[in-house]
Amino acid sequence: MRAFTYHNPTRIEFGQGKEKLIGQYMAEYGVKKALIVYGSDRIKQNGLFHSVVNSLVENSIAYETLGGVVSNPLLSKVYEGIEIAKTRGVDAVLAVGGGSVLDSSKAIAAGAKYDGDVWDFFIGKGFPKQALKIFDIMTLAATGSEMNNYGVVTNEMTREKLSLAGPTTYPTVSVINPELQATVANDYLAYSASDIFAHSLDMYLSATYLPEYMAGYVENILKTVMRTTELLLADSTDYNARAEFAWAATQALNFTTFCGVENNRFDTHFLEHTLSAEYNIAHGAGLSIIMPAWMKWQKQHQPQRFERFAKIMFGVNGADAGIDALKTWYSKIGAPVTLKEGNIPETDIPMLTDKLQAVAKLWGAEALYTRDMITGVLENAK
Amino acid sequence: MRAFTYHNPTRIEFGQGKEKLIGQYMAEYGVKKALIVYGSDRIKQNGLFHSVVNSLVENSIAYETLGGVVSNPLLSKVYEGIEIAKTRGVDAVLAVGGGSVLDSSKAIAAGAKYDGDVWDFFIGKGFPKQALKIFDIMTLAATGSEMNNYGVVTNEMTREKLSLAGPTTYPTVSVINPELQATVANDYLAYSASDIFAHSLDMYLSATYLPEYMAGYVENILKTVMRTTELLLADSTDYNARAEFAWAATQALNFTTFCGVENNRFDTHFLEHTLSAEYNIAHGAGLSIIMPAWMKWQKQHQPQRFERFAKIMFGVNGADAGIDALKTWYSKIGAPVTLKEGNIPETDIPMLTDKLQAVAKLWGAEALYTRDMITGVLENAK
Repeated sequence: MRAFTYHNPTRIEFGQGKEKLIGQYMAEYGVKKALIVYGSDRIKQNGLFHSVVNSLVENSIAYETLGGVVSNPLLSKVYEGIEIAKTRGVDAVLAVGGGSVLDSSKAIAAGAKYDGDVWDFFIGKGFPKQALKIFDIMTLAATGSEMNNYGVVTNEMTREKLSLAGPTTYPTVSVINPELQATVANDYLAYSASDIFAHSLDMYLSATYLPEYMAGYVENILKTVMRTTELLLADSTDYNARAEFAWAATQALNFTTFCGVENNRFDTHFLEHTLSAEYNIAHGAGLSIIMPAWMKWQKQHQPQRFERFAKIMFGVNGADAGIDALKTWYSKIGAPVTLKEGNIPETDIPMLTDKLQAVAKLWGAEALYTRDMITGVLENAK
Repeated sequence: MRAFTYHNPTRIEFGQGKEKLIGQYMAEYGVKKALIVYGSDRIKQNGLFHSVVNSLVENSIAYETLGGVVSNPLLSKVYEGIEIAKTRGVDAVLAVGGGSVLDSSKAIAAGAKYDGDVWDFFIGKGFPKQALKIFDIMTLAATGSEMNNYGVVTNEMTREKLSLAGPTTYPTVSVINPELQATVANDYLAYSASDIFAHSLDMYLSATYLPEYMAGYVENILKTVMRTTELLLADSTDYNARAEFAWAATQALNFTTFCGVENNRFDTHFLEHTLSAEYNIAHGAGLSIIMPAWMKWQKQHQPQRFERFAKIMFGVNGADAGIDALKTWYSKIGAPVTLKEGNIPETDIPMLTDKLQAVAKLWGAEALYTRDMITGVLENAK
């Protein structure tokens, strides 16, 4: 195993009804005034917003609100939140929603304690040394944002989708009540499964050294996601399946999978973020298109890992059979697997390659993400 | 899945040479004066003590020392440490050793901030609300103490072996350098494997609801321990095996295995602590005696779980075959499996039953640990 540091300070409150205790959790950390960030007004119709506000009031926590966060969340909305936080004496951000809402909230929390432009943190000009306290109630399981410090936001002016992260942007308390995640539509459930798969497979299929322990650990996450996705597509009210799906999502990106591995990369996320920034498709849908295409390119670098994946996950022999089986499974659950299925014009491949090269340059990763590699993967997605 | 809270604030620094950075880690948390707690003088002979002290001095951290902690660590030594900490202005405890040293250090850290008798925390009179900061460098992987808040100590006056735990007794930083664990003798490696097995199996074989995700998670820990124990018995210099063994030990008792499970108990640890308090045998040796005996009693309550265990871990059919296979494996690696092999007189069973009943009463667990159950398990260990 390779050397590593593991330190994840987030407290998880998992289970039915725990959102009703959010005010109590926040009061434990001395919160006086929160900015509630959310997406659509659905949470006002289904009573969640009401429960949350009640809990804050009961615990003498004042609040401001910011609704309207969208999928592939926008920098302009983050600026709006920072303005509210700065001018109205907010000391914590409470995200009520999915990964987009929480990621926006992380950016707001960091920007509220920063004199410059919060976008600095996304383009590598330092990292947030201070931030407001972050709390969340997750209504969708996918991004794992509830137990990590990453926040992904799209700058709609430049059409760049980038991330910030710092020691201060871990949530203080994350509430996961699987019941609140039970109304997700089947297509979004499939996209979520694809997102969790990508968090796991990016590492599993790229690491140049993968401890046997970690291989088994990640395979257990993948198997859980496959099993519970199928159970939930058959019966959306299956609480235990919903709960295991949610917990697998959290584990897939709380950095436990990185412990002791060498050179794990994040290729499909790197490639996908430009797709969803450009075409505003769901992140998980972009990933189910990119993943098999990337695997066809990556298999040459990790032939044994791909054979193991094929055998253990699908009981088939050989890298290609494993890739095909995953593609078939994505189709079965309703996730797109080609550019065409994602309504992405194949003729855009040269333009996308240019864009991705520019991002690679920003990351100092041009040697890894060459034109040949990027075009090759996108061509595989035809 | 059942509701749970997960919050583990410990930072892990894993890898070769990291003990040389301990002063830096402690300085990050503002430590000015540490009490270094250790066991035998072996760490002075092999250079570890010297490295640690150098690192403290480089970071302007003063120190006191307390050596002589033994296996099944004693309350009298804890009192000694508390006295030093209180009278000499120590603000952190640094454990350099195995689980016994760290557990003693947790008790010292708690006792140093308490006006009453630290033993209060062991017998259920409250829990430590304050404690000195705790740091450690682990020279043995087994107890998982490096990423949890439990400390087990033996009161030699009463021959009680009990534990304390509180929100303040998690280590702040734990250093795991597998190289420092490479000199452990083969018998102690086997006892360590038995300890990790017990941390995993107590939960796995008792929980009345075990999410499928968690079953796979624990089986992966168990398989890692089996595989790496065999690798290390064949070649004690196998760094990656040593590292995976260490990481499996940490994962087995950092409370990740408890998330979402129902009614998991800690039966073999409950039963064993009285054995090692009474006969001063190694904790892991006591556990390898108790585990198969307890399994023979427990199998009636979880027949399907036992069948699964047998199949997945040893490829055999039926609960009894699984128990026999585990017993055979313990014997193969050199861990005792009967009272006789542990030099425990079978005629002591009635006395041990009395003692265990008294502890059960202290825990309010008489209904669970009945005379019939205790005697039955001990009889199975003949």
